[in-house]
Amino acid sequence: MAAPSRLLIRGGRVVNGDSSQVADVLVEDGVVRALGRDLLPPADAPAGLRVLDAAGKLVLPGGIDTHTHMQFPFMGSRSVDDFYQGTKAALAGGTTMIIDFAIPHKGHSLIEAFETWRSWADPKVCCDYSLHVAVTWWSEQVKEEMKILTQDKGVNSFKMFMAYKDLYMLRDVELYKVFSWCKEIGAIAEVHAENGDLIAEGAKKMLALGITGPEGHELGRPEAVEAEATLRAITIAGAVNCPLCVVHVMSKSAARVIADARRDGKVVYGEPIAAGLGTDGTHYWNREWPHAAHHVMGPPLRPDPSTPDFLMNLLANGDLTITGSDHCTFNTCQKALGKDDFTKIPNGVNGVEDRMSVIWEKGVHSGKMDENWFVAVTSTNAAKIFNLYPRKGKIAVGSDADIVIWDPKATRTISAKTHHQAVNFNIFEGMVCHGVPLVTISRGKVVYEAGVFSVTAGDGKFIPRKPFAEYIYKRIKQQDQITSVESSDS
Amino acid sequence: MAAPSRLLIRGGRVVNGDSSQVADVLVEDGVVRALGRDLLPPADAPAGLRVLDAAGKLVLPGGIDTHTHMQFPFMGSRSVDDFYQGTKAALAGGTTMIIDFAIPHKGHSLIEAFETWRSWADPKVCCDYSLHVAVTWWSEQVKEEMKILTQDKGVNSFKMFMAYKDLYMLRDVELYKVFSWCKEIGAIAEVHAENGDLIAEGAKKMLALGITGPEGHELGRPEAVEAEATLRAITIAGAVNCPLCVVHVMSKSAARVIADARRDGKVVYGEPIAAGLGTDGTHYWNREWPHAAHHVMGPPLRPDPSTPDFLMNLLANGDLTITGSDHCTFNTCQKALGKDDFTKIPNGVNGVEDRMSVIWEKGVHSGKMDENWFVAVTSTNAAKIFNLYPRKGKIAVGSDADIVIWDPKATRTISAKTHHQAVNFNIFEGMVCHGVPLVTISRGKVVYEAGVFSVTAGDGKFIPRKPFAEYIYKRIKQQDQITSVESSDS
Amino acid sequence: MAAPSRLLIRGGRVVNGDSSQVADVLVEDGVVRALGRDLLPPADAPAGLRVLDAAGKLVLPGGIDTHTHMQFPFMGSRSVDDFYQGTKAALAGGTTMIIDFAIPHKGHSLIEAFETWRSWADPKVCCDYSLHVAVTWWSEQVKEEMKILTQDKGVNSFKMFMAYKDLYMLRDVELYKVFSWCKEIGAIAEVHAENGDLIAEGAKKMLALGITGPEGHELGRPEAVEAEATLRAITIAGAVNCPLCVVHVMSKSAARVIADARRDGKVVYGEPIAAGLGTDGTHYWNREWPHAAHHVMGPPLRPDPSTPDFLMNLLANGDLTITGSDHCTFNTCQKALGKDDFTKIPNGVNGVEDRMSVIWEKGVHSGKMDENWFVAVTSTNAAKIFNLYPRKGKIAVGSDADIVIWDPKATRTISAKTHHQAVNFNIFEGMVCHGVPLVTISRGKVVYEAGVFSVTAGDGKFIPRKPFAEYIYKRIKQQDQITSVESSDS
Amino acid sequence: MAAPSRLLIRGGRVVNGDSSQVADVLVEDGVVRALGRDLLPPADAPAGLRVLDAAGKLVLPGGIDTHTHMQFPFMGSRSVDDFYQGTKAALAGGTTMIIDFAIPHKGHSLIEAFETWRSWADPKVCCDYSLHVAVTWWSEQVKEEMKILTQDKGVNSFKMFMAYKDLYMLRDVELYKVFSWCKEIGAIAEVHAENGDLIAEGAKKMLALGITGPEGHELGRPEAVEAEATLRAITIAGAVNCPLCVVHVMSKSAARVIADARRDGKVVYGEPIAAGLGTDGTHYWNREWPHAAHHVMGPPLRPDPSTPDFLMNLLANGDLTITGSDHCTFNTCQKALGKDDFTKIPNGVNGVEDRMSVIWEKGVHSGKMDENWFVAVTSTNAAKIFNLYPRKGKIAVGSDADIVIWDPKATRTISAKTHHQAVNFNIFEGMVCHGVPLVTISRGKVVYEAGVFSVTAGDGKFIPRKPFAEYIYKRIKQQDQITSVESSDS
Repeated sequence: MAAPSRLLIRGGRVVNGDSSQVADVLVEDGVVRALGRDLLPPADAPAGLRVLDAAGKLVLPGGIDTHTHMQFPFMGSRSVDDFYQGTKAALAGGTTMIIDFAIPHKGHSLIEAFETWRSWADPKVCCDYSLHVAVTWWSEQVKEEMKILTQDKGVNSFKMFMAYKDLYMLRDVELYKVFSWCKEIGAIAEVHAENGDLIAEGAKKMLALGITGPEGHELGRPEAVEAEATLRAITIAGAVNCPLCVVHVMSKSAARVIADARRDGKVVYGEPIAAGLGTDGTHYWNREWPHAAHHVMGPPLRPDPSTPDFLMNLLANGDLTITGSDHCTFNTCQKALGKDDFTKIPNGVNGVEDRMSVIWEKGVHSGKMDENWFVAVTSTNAAKIFNLYPRKGKIAVGSDADIVIWDPKATRTISAKTHHQAVNFNIFEGMVCHGVPLVTISRGKVVYEAGVFSVTAGDGKFIPRKPFAEYIYKRIKQQDQITSVESSDS
Repeated sequence: MAAPSRLLIRGGRVVNGDSSQVADVLVEDGVVRALGRDLLPPADAPAGLRVLDAAGKLVLPGGIDTHTHMQFPFMGSRSVDDFYQGTKAALAGGTTMIIDFAIPHKGHSLIEAFETWRSWADPKVCCDYSLHVAVTWWSEQVKEEMKILTQDKGVNSFKMFMAYKDLYMLRDVELYKVFSWCKEIGAIAEVHAENGDLIAEGAKKMLALGITGPEGHELGRPEAVEAEATLRAITIAGAVNCPLCVVHVMSKSAARVIADARRDGKVVYGEPIAAGLGTDGTHYWNREWPHAAHHVMGPPLRPDPSTPDFLMNLLANGDLTITGSDHCTFNTCQKALGKDDFTKIPNGVNGVEDRMSVIWEKGVHSGKMDENWFVAVTSTNAAKIFNLYPRKGKIAVGSDADIVIWDPKATRTISAKTHHQAVNFNIFEGMVCHGVPLVTISRGKVVYEAGVFSVTAGDGKFIPRKPFAEYIYKRIKQQDQITSVESSDS
Repeated sequence: MAAPSRLLIRGGRVVNGDSSQVADVLVEDGVVRALGRDLLPPADAPAGLRVLDAAGKLVLPGGIDTHTHMQFPFMGSRSVDDFYQGTKAALAGGTTMIIDFAIPHKGHSLIEAFETWRSWADPKVCCDYSLHVAVTWWSEQVKEEMKILTQDKGVNSFKMFMAYKDLYMLRDVELYKVFSWCKEIGAIAEVHAENGDLIAEGAKKMLALGITGPEGHELGRPEAVEAEATLRAITIAGAVNCPLCVVHVMSKSAARVIADARRDGKVVYGEPIAAGLGTDGTHYWNREWPHAAHHVMGPPLRPDPSTPDFLMNLLANGDLTITGSDHCTFNTCQKALGKDDFTKIPNGVNGVEDRMSVIWEKGVHSGKMDENWFVAVTSTNAAKIFNLYPRKGKIAVGSDADIVIWDPKATRTISAKTHHQAVNFNIFEGMVCHGVPLVTISRGKVVYEAGVFSVTAGDGKFIPRKPFAEYIYKRIKQQDQITSVESSDS
Repeated sequence: MAAPSRLLIRGGRVVNGDSSQVADVLVEDGVVRALGRDLLPPADAPAGLRVLDAAGKLVLPGGIDTHTHMQFPFMGSRSVDDFYQGTKAALAGGTTMIIDFAIPHKGHSLIEAFETWRSWADPKVCCDYSLHVAVTWWSEQVKEEMKILTQDKGVNSFKMFMAYKDLYMLRDVELYKVFSWCKEIGAIAEVHAENGDLIAEGAKKMLALGITGPEGHELGRPEAVEAEATLRAITIAGAVNCPLCVVHVMSKSAARVIADARRDGKVVYGEPIAAGLGTDGTHYWNREWPHAAHHVMGPPLRPDPSTPDFLMNLLANGDLTITGSDHCTFNTCQKALGKDDFTKIPNGVNGVEDRMSVIWEKGVHSGKMDENWFVAVTSTNAAKIFNLYPRKGKIAVGSDADIVIWDPKATRTISAKTHHQAVNFNIFEGMVCHGVPLVTISRGKVVYEAGVFSVTAGDGKFIPRKPFAEYIYKRIKQQDQITSVESSDS
C-alpha cells in the first residue's frame, strides 16, 4: 500500500525566513495545503492522514544546498558520494534540495554535459535537485546553448572558473562575454574566484621549494589570490551590470571585497560553505597526512583561525547570502593520489549532510543569527536567487512540502562513523552540534525519521528554474532603464 | 449610514517585505480577512462591500514613520504640525502609522510625559500611532517608570540624547545604566548620537568667529561629531549587550560606523530619514536665509553632496534598517527666532508626508532596491523591531488593514503649495517623484483617495507595543545564555 | 668665458626631506661642497664665485619628475614636448631631473628601445634624466636584455602595462614572470594598472551607445577598472615578493587599495601625478570639445570632485610616496584625431613644469604637508626608490647641485600663454599657485632665473641607476631570508 | 683621572632615520664633532682619544623611550624601577633618553608635581630625560601653570587621561579646553584613550560575575573601550585642530582609528609600546597567577594573537609613529595586592630595557622595516615631535653624542634573570632577539659596554623642550591661516 498521501505536522513552531508562528501544517500530494492553528481536532485522525507531533520543535523549510558535486569525475578520480548516497545524506541532515553542477570540458557541448548529469542524477536522486551549468569556454555554440538551457532546460545559473587553468579557466575577456550574455538571457553568473595563473605558479613554487604536503596547497594559493579574483569578477560583472554570485567564499579578505561591493550597490551575492564556516586551514599542517589531505579543497580553508567566525558574522549580517557545502568527497585512498604531490590530491570535502547543523551550531546557537535568518541563509535566499521561491524555501500554502522537523535543543556529534555520507572521513569530526533534524519530509513524504530512511532512488525530481528571477532582476532592469534614459537625455 | 465595513482591493500586486503576488485583498472590520486570487467573481459586489480596483497598481502595507515630533514644544516654539494635521499629511503620503516621542524634561516624570503626549494625540490622530519615551535623566524613579511604561503602557523603546547638553543630554555613565535597564526590561534603546559637549563648544566658536547664519549650524557640529557619538553609543550598548537603534543617521561616517558594527555582529540598527536620503546640507549656504533656515535640524544635513546616495546604498544593502522623517516643522516666522543666531533657529524639517515618495524615487526608481525591500524599510522592519509585526508592516490574513494603493508609474512634484503638511516650506520642493499613493486605507477605512480625505480626528489608535520583541531579543537572549554558560565553564 | 664654476647660495632656508636649516650652500663643479652658516663673510666674494641671495627664501633639492613621455610616438602622433623643450619647461618649474620611458613594441628589443630613447634625449636634454624601460612582451631575449640593462645600462626600473591591450599589455602570467625577474635582478616593477580587457570592451560599449566624446573615455574605463588592476598587480607582485610602484594613481579606490596593501606590509609605492592632484575629470563633460579632449589621458581623471583632495591627503600621509606628471603633450590639432571617436584622441596631459607648484599649492599651502614632506614627495623619496640618493633628492655635501630657490610667498598663475611647455593648452589654466621657483640650478649651473633660461641642449646627463636600491631591497632581502629559514625549519 | 673626553667610533655603519653610511664618528665634549670616512689614520690614536671599533656594526642614535613611569606612586604602591635603576636598564638596552610623566592629583599644582618629579629624577638619572606633565583637572590655575611649564620649564607635551575615573580622568568638555589651550601654547596633547566610565562599570560587572583574576582586567575593558576613546580624542582634538598623540596603542581597532584619521589629514600620532609589539593578552589566562598578573597594565594587552603583528605593520608603515615602553614595574609581591581582585593589581609592565631589541626582532629582523625606519620609530620621530631634533634622534655634527653600537647579527635571550630592570619578572621572558646593543654612549661617555656599566647617578640631564615644534606645528599653523582667510572671505 502506498504511504499516506496526507500528512499533518501538529503543533510545531513553523519558521520561515520572514517570521515564525506556532501552527499546524497540512500536507497533501506533496504540497502544503493548509497552515494554521488547530487544523484538526486533537483526537481526530482520518484514514490516510499521518500525524506528526512537532510540539516544542521547529518546523523548517528543508535546506537547499546550492553547491554540490556528486559522483563528479575530477582530477583522475570520481567523488564517492553519488546522487543516491549523496542525496540520502542530504536528507539525513535536513537538506531537501541540492543544486549540482554540470561541467563540460573545454570545447564540449554544454547541453550534452547537462544531459549527462541529468542521466546520472535522475535515476538516483532521493530529493529534488537542480543543475548549474559551467561555462568553460566561449563560442557561438556556447552562446546558443546557454540560451537553450535557459529557455528550455530549466537552467538560470552558469558557473565560470577563474581557477583550474587550462582545464576550466576563463580569461577576463571571456568572462566579460559570458557575463554579458548571462544578463541578456536572465541568468545569474557564478564564479569560482581564484587567480588561476597565480595558483599554477604558486604550486610550481611550492614544489620547487620541496613543499609537497597538503600545507603547500594553501601556501601556494593564499587568500590574496582569492580576494584578487573576487574583486576582478565583481568589476567585470559590474561593467555589464550582470548579477553575480561568488561561490565558496573562503577567506576574510574575499568576503570583505563582496561586502564592500554590496555597500556600493552592486548586485552581488556571496556563498560561504559549511567547511569554511565550521573549520579552518590549520588542519593542513596536521601531522597525519590523511587528515590534512581530507581538508584539501579549492579555494583552500584558511589558516587564520578567526576566519569561520568572521564569515559567520557576515552571513548573519546579510553581507553573505546563501550557503552550500561544495560537497565533493574522496576517500583516503583517492586522496592518496597526491601523497607525494599536493597538486594531485583530489580537491573536495564533505558537507551536504553537515551544513544545516554546522550553521545552526555556529550561527544560531552562538547567538549570531536567529531561527528565521537561519532559514533565510539555508533555503529562502537561495530559493529567491535561483527563482524557486515560494515553491521552495518557504512553508506556505502551495509550497512544496519539503520540510524538516528540527529539535533545537537536542545535540548530536558529527562523526564519519555515524554519518550517512559515503566518504570515510568527516572534516567536522567530533563537533557537538545543537540542532538536530528529527524528521525530514521531501515532497510530502517522510523520507528520514529517527535515523531511518524511507527513500527510493529517483524519487527526487529535477526542478527547472526560470530566468529573470525577480529577486535579482527587478533592480537590474530598473537600473538599466534609468541609465538608458539618462544616456539619451544627456 | 456607516461606511461599508468590508472592502475588496481587487487585482493589485500585493507587495510585502518578503515577496510580491498578484492577489485580491479582502478587508473586514479593519483587518485583512482574505488574500488570494479572484476572491470575488468579477461582477459580484454584495451590499456593504466596496471594491477598489488595483489592477496594474501596487498594494503595500501602509508606511510606518518611526520618528516624528508633532506639536512638539521645542526651542521656545511649538512644531506646527499637530497630531491632526500631521497624521493627515502622513496618510496623504501613504504612511498609516507614526511613532512619536514623549519627552520629559530632566527631573520630570516619564509617565506624566507619556500621558501628556497621549492626551495631545488621542483626540487628534487620524492614523494609528505609538510613542517612544525619552529618558533625559536617571534615578530610581526613572527606572521604576521605565518598567511601568514597558509592562503596562505599551512602550518598548526609549530614546536617549547624547546632544542637547543640559536640556536632554545624558552622560556615558547614565547611558550605561539606561542601556542596562532597557535590556533588563526588554526594550530597545534609541539614541540621538551627537557629542553634545562638542556641539556646545562648536556653536560658541562659530558665533565667536562671527558666523551667525545657518551654515554655522553645520560648521559647528560637523559629521565627525556625529560619528564619534555613534561609535560611543554602540560601544556602551555593546558593553551591556543592549539592542540599539541610532536614529536620524545623517552622515556617511556615522553610517559607516553602524555598518561596521553590524559586520562585527552587534545588534544595532540605523534609521536614516527622508531629509537625509533626499537632500543635503549645501542648502545651509543658500543665499536666502529662510531657505537655509528651513533646513536646520539636528544632526544637520551634510554638505557632502554624495551623502544621500551613500545612505540610500546602505539602506538598500541592509546596513541601515528603518526609516523615519524626524518630522518637526516650524514656519518661517518661527525659524526667524534665529535670524541673528543660528543656535536659536528651531530645529526641524518636514517629511512625514514625503518619506515614502522620496524613498521610492531615490531608492526604487533609481534601481537601488526593489519594491519588497522598499516595504521592508518603510514598514516591515520597523514593525519587527518595535514588535508590531505581523499586525503592522505586512498584508496578511489577520493583519491590520493599513494599506496603500501605490502607482509606481505616476509622478508627482513635491511642493509646499500642494502638500498637506501645515508648514509653509518643503525641503524637497520641486522634486519629481515617481511612485504616488492613490488610496490610503487605515484600519480598513479609505481615508485618502484621489486627493480627498475622509478622516476624523481621533480615529487613529494608540498601539501598545510589548517588550522583548523576538526580532531583536532572540539573538540577545541566546548570546547571553552562551556567554553565561561559558563563564561558568571557565 | 665659462660660467663661474662656483656658486654660493646665501642665507636661505635649506629644506631637505628630513628637516630644514638656515644655511649657506657652496657649490663647486656641479656638486655641493659645503653647507653651513656664514660660509663666506658677507662682503667677500672671490672671483669665480657667484653669490645668490636666498634670504627669506627656501633652498630645495630640484624636483624629480618620475614620469614623463617626451617626444613620444604614440597613437599615431608624437608628443610635442621633446627632450629639449620638455626639460626646459621642467627647469622653469623647479624640476631638475626627469625619468622618461623607453618603450619597445612587442617583439622588439628592449636595448634597442633604450638606445633609441638615449639617442633622442642625450643631445637635447637640459637637465639630468634617466630612463625606465617598458617590458611589453616576454621571452628569453627580454629576460637577457633586462639583465643587461640592469647591470650595464643603468636601468633599475621596468614598467609593465596592464592596459593598452594588444599594443603593450601583458597578461598575468607574463606579469608574474617579469616581476619574478625584476626581483632577481634587483629592479623595481612599475605598472600602469588598468584592466585592458575591460577598457577595450568599455570603449566598444560607449561607441555602440553613440557616446563618442571625451566623456566616453572615462565612462568606458571608470575607476573600478583601475582599482581592480591595482589589486591584481599588488597580488601578483606579492606572490613573488617583488617591490612594486603603481604609477599614475588616479582614483580614490585605487589609492585605497595601495594604502591598504601598505598597512599589510607590502612593499608597494603609489605615484600620483600633477594632473590627478590638481584637477579632475568633470572637465570631460566640458562643452568645449578641445577643452575636454586636452584632459584625456590614461587612466582618466575622475569625475568625483573630491578625488584630488583625497589623493593629496594620502600623499601627505605617506600612503602614496612619489610624484610624477605623466607629461605627454599633444596640441589641439593632434587631439583632433579623435574628434569623432574618443578612442582616437592621443592620451596625455601637461605637468612637467607645473608639478612642483601644484603640489605646493594643494599640499603645502593648504596645510596638508610641510615643506620637508614636499621635498620628500617631489624628489627625496624618488631618489631613494630609484637609487639616486643621496646624490639626488638632497642638499648635502657631495650631492649634485640640483637646487631650486623657492619663494613660498610669491604667487603665479598657471597659463598656457605663459608656460614654457610646447603644448597650446594647460590643464591647470588659471590656477593661482603660491610657491614660485625663482632660480633653478642644474649640476651647479644657474639655468633658469627670473624667467630667463641659460640652457644648452645636451647639458643634462643620463644618470645610470644601480640595482638593489637599499631603500626597497633591505626589507625584501630580509623577508626572503626569514622565509627561507622558516621553510627549512618546518 | 677623567674619562677621555674624546671618542672615535670607527668604521661602523652610521644609521639615521633618513639613510645610512659607513663613517667614523668623532665625539668631543658630549657632542658629535665630525662624521665621515677615515677621520683618523688607522694607527693614530692621540692621547685622550678613545677609539671604538665598530666595523661590521651599526652605529645608531640612542633610543628615546617616550613613555616611562619610574618610581611612580600608583595604586597604593610604587614602581620598583626608580630613576637610577630604570635609566641604567635603559642604557643597557640602548636607550639614552626617557620621557617620564609628572602626574599631579586632581586639584594639585602641575608645577609642584613637575618639581617633585625633577627632585626625584635629577639626582638619580643615568641618562638624559624629559617630563610630560599630566593635566588631571582644569581651572584657571591649571591654565596658567601649563603656560609657565611651556614657556619656562621645558615642557611641550601634556597628557590627559580618559581612564582612571575620579582619579585622573577628564571629561570631554575638559579635554576640549585642555586641547584648545595646548594648541594656543604650542604643546602637543597626549591621551590615555580608554573610556573610564566603561572601565569602571566593566570592572564591577566582572567582579559581580565572580571573575576576580587577571583575565577580568581585559574582559572588563575590551578593545572597543579603547577604540571608542581613541576616536573621541581625535574628534575633540580635531575640533580645535590640536596636535594629538595617542599613547600606548594596544589594539588593532584603536590603531585602525588612528590610521584612518591620518588618511583624513588629521595631525595625530600613535605610540605603540614594547609590550604591545612583543607579546599579547593571552597571558591573562595563564594558570600561574603571578605570570598573568605581571601582564596587567592599562590599556590591557589584547587576547587576539594577531595584534602585535598588526601593530608592527602599522608602525612600519608610518601609521603609528613613535614607541615607548610604559615601563612601570611592580614586583610579584606588589602585584599580589590584587590577588583576589584584579582591580587592585598595580598596573604596569617592564620594557625600558627591552624596547629596542623587541622592535628590532619583530620589526627589522622580520623584514617589516629597515634599519633606518627602526631609528625613526625608536628615536628620530620622537625627537621631531617633542622638539628635540636634531639634537637628539640623529647622529650628525652638533648632535648630542647619544649613541649605540648595535650588533644586528648577535642574539640575546631576554630574561628576568639577566635583565637590569629592578623587577623580578619580564614579560618577554625567553624571547630570542637578534640585535644586541654592544656599547651605549650617553653624552659622549661610554656608559655601558659588554655588560658593564660606567654610570653615575645624576649624570643624565633634564632636557627642556620648546613649544611649537616645527614638525607638528608647521602644518597646524598653515591650516589655521588658510581657514581664517577662507572664513573672512566668505
